[in-house]
Amino acid sequence: MLLSIGPCHKLCSLLVFALIATVAVARADPLPSWNDAATKRAIIDFVTTVTRHGGPAFVPDDERIAVFDMDGTLIPERPIPAAVIPLGADLKHAVEKKPILADKPAIRAFLKGDAAAFRNSGEQGLNDLIAAVTDGRTTEEFSASILPPLEATTHDKFRVPYTRAVYEPMAELLSYLKANGFKNWICSGSPILFTRAVSMEMLGIPPQRVMGTTAGMQFDERDGKTVLVFDGTIDHLNDQEGKPPTINLALGARPIFVGGNVGGRGDIAMMRWSKDRAGPSFQLLINHDDAEREFEYSEPDNYSLEAARRYRFHVVSIRDDWKTVVAP
Amino acid sequence: MLLSIGPCHKLCSLLVFALIATVAVARADPLPSWNDAATKRAIIDFVTTVTRHGGPAFVPDDERIAVFDMDGTLIPERPIPAAVIPLGADLKHAVEKKPILADKPAIRAFLKGDAAAFRNSGEQGLNDLIAAVTDGRTTEEFSASILPPLEATTHDKFRVPYTRAVYEPMAELLSYLKANGFKNWICSGSPILFTRAVSMEMLGIPPQRVMGTTAGMQFDERDGKTVLVFDGTIDHLNDQEGKPPTINLALGARPIFVGGNVGGRGDIAMMRWSKDRAGPSFQLLINHDDAEREFEYSEPDNYSLEAARRYRFHVVSIRDDWKTVVAP
Repeated sequence: MLLSIGPCHKLCSLLVFALIATVAVARADPLPSWNDAATKRAIIDFVTTVTRHGGPAFVPDDERIAVFDMDGTLIPERPIPAAVIPLGADLKHAVEKKPILADKPAIRAFLKGDAAAFRNSGEQGLNDLIAAVTDGRTTEEFSASILPPLEATTHDKFRVPYTRAVYEPMAELLSYLKANGFKNWICSGSPILFTRAVSMEMLGIPPQRVMGTTAGMQFDERDGKTVLVFDGTIDHLNDQEGKPPTINLALGARPIFVGGNVGGRGDIAMMRWSKDRAGPSFQLLINHDDAEREFEYSEPDNYSLEAARRYRFHVVSIRDDWKTVVAP
Repeated sequence: MLLSIGPCHKLCSLLVFALIATVAVARADPLPSWNDAATKRAIIDFVTTVTRHGGPAFVPDDERIAVFDMDGTLIPERPIPAAVIPLGADLKHAVEKKPILADKPAIRAFLKGDAAAFRNSGEQGLNDLIAAVTDGRTTEEFSASILPPLEATTHDKFRVPYTRAVYEPMAELLSYLKANGFKNWICSGSPILFTRAVSMEMLGIPPQRVMGTTAGMQFDERDGKTVLVFDGTIDHLNDQEGKPPTINLALGARPIFVGGNVGGRGDIAMMRWSKDRAGPSFQLLINHDDAEREFEYSEPDNYSLEAARRYRFHVVSIRDDWKTVVAP
């Protein structure tokens, strides 16, 4: 024997301790910021069922893929989507160089600080903005400029830096899914180059598991080195019926768990596509119904809530289901 | 103590045994099908250097990303790319329904069994074929039809089923990189829907780490269920300067290790893009110079070999570097 009895006993004690600690963690409430209501119970039932080895609804690890919208689902999207924050100074430079850009409604609204008009310009507006500020820059120049202004800007409502303005119950859900062998992905209408720059820091999701709206880019050389340069176009607008093709391109499969939110009809297509997979699945739709603690908004025709009723998605009421919205 | 001394000793013995086994594996030759020449030594030097904790060129796990072309790099592409095999019966049906398809050079060549004419139609030709056979089918219908004909067809030269026609030295390289914390990806000119259907079975690479040429698809319903239906167009031709944008879209980073091959100029752009990353990198270019054991082919203008010389890529001579090409 190379090891004496002493260290061997220590090793055994450590193993026993690790075992006890593991059991303790497994029994703790995995979703403490959720009220003990139907939605929380449905989530835990689903995860327990699909991870039970030998059970009738067992789903192997490599199929445990969860896909979440970001703005309005994992982080607040009011008063403005986080992606807009880093673009301010960049946009002013772009408009100085090319004044015609200010004719676009989103850009005009943005420069005037008119949040409602900016929202009305929709995903297309956000992307006009992106096209304007990326044009002619390399992917690497652009990526490096995103995180610092978000860290330096305080969210109007939650009084924390934008990088910490994350829905606490959803952060817990991501951790709970991860601990149960799920791989969490983001499928956002925001530009992929923005979402990727913040996904690890804000949500613990690595950049390779991020899908989003894509800007056109060209392979080129600068100072004898190869670079990818944005060409000022939008390649794929990742919203509504554009989301399932993006997910299929990244994953080659329908996700088993999808989270989205009421507000812009953006997530219903990917939720239906998940629901129609062969085998169990779970769809979570967040309803922004808490004017006091967050924001209250929905669609004029109630499109997403109607879809949730028709296709039996689980609806989260922020008012009733969440104890905390954003941790102070 | 919950555990007695007896099992504790057993545990220690097991640990010691595991330790010895690990050391033995680490010392075994990780690339036995490679001749002990400069290329093999360069690969092992590179992997050893970037994985040495505390060393000057250490690269953390999450940056250890290796990207390989598939046809001609990991598997043979002569006499025809493997992707062509599953398309035979499908193409006949497509042409019966829409005879004008036979006017396309690649489709005419394919139906006549003229391999040289088919190759001359290039990536565009392969993709005319893909567009013809996918048009109107769902992603899931198409994916299910790929593996069976490959399993049932014997490769003309290597006399094994197409699913086992893999370069043995490259299979070893993939295993070696994986064992050293690298994540292996495929970036192929072949259609992603084909490559994904074979990547796990043939190369041990999961479908989520596959990039390729993409066909256009639309979100639709069939019998009340949501589906993605191919629309007969090519969305992105993943070859030459189209490869770096694809990699950037999937990874958001330049790969540290890239493998490609001489023959169609297809891999030089992504190799240069890797070479220009900040930090260490390795580029491996396979030269098809073994008419006897494999095939001998190159580009009329020697484009890829010239680039390898100019940018100092490592060139694999199949004739001199590989003991085995495809395992019998």
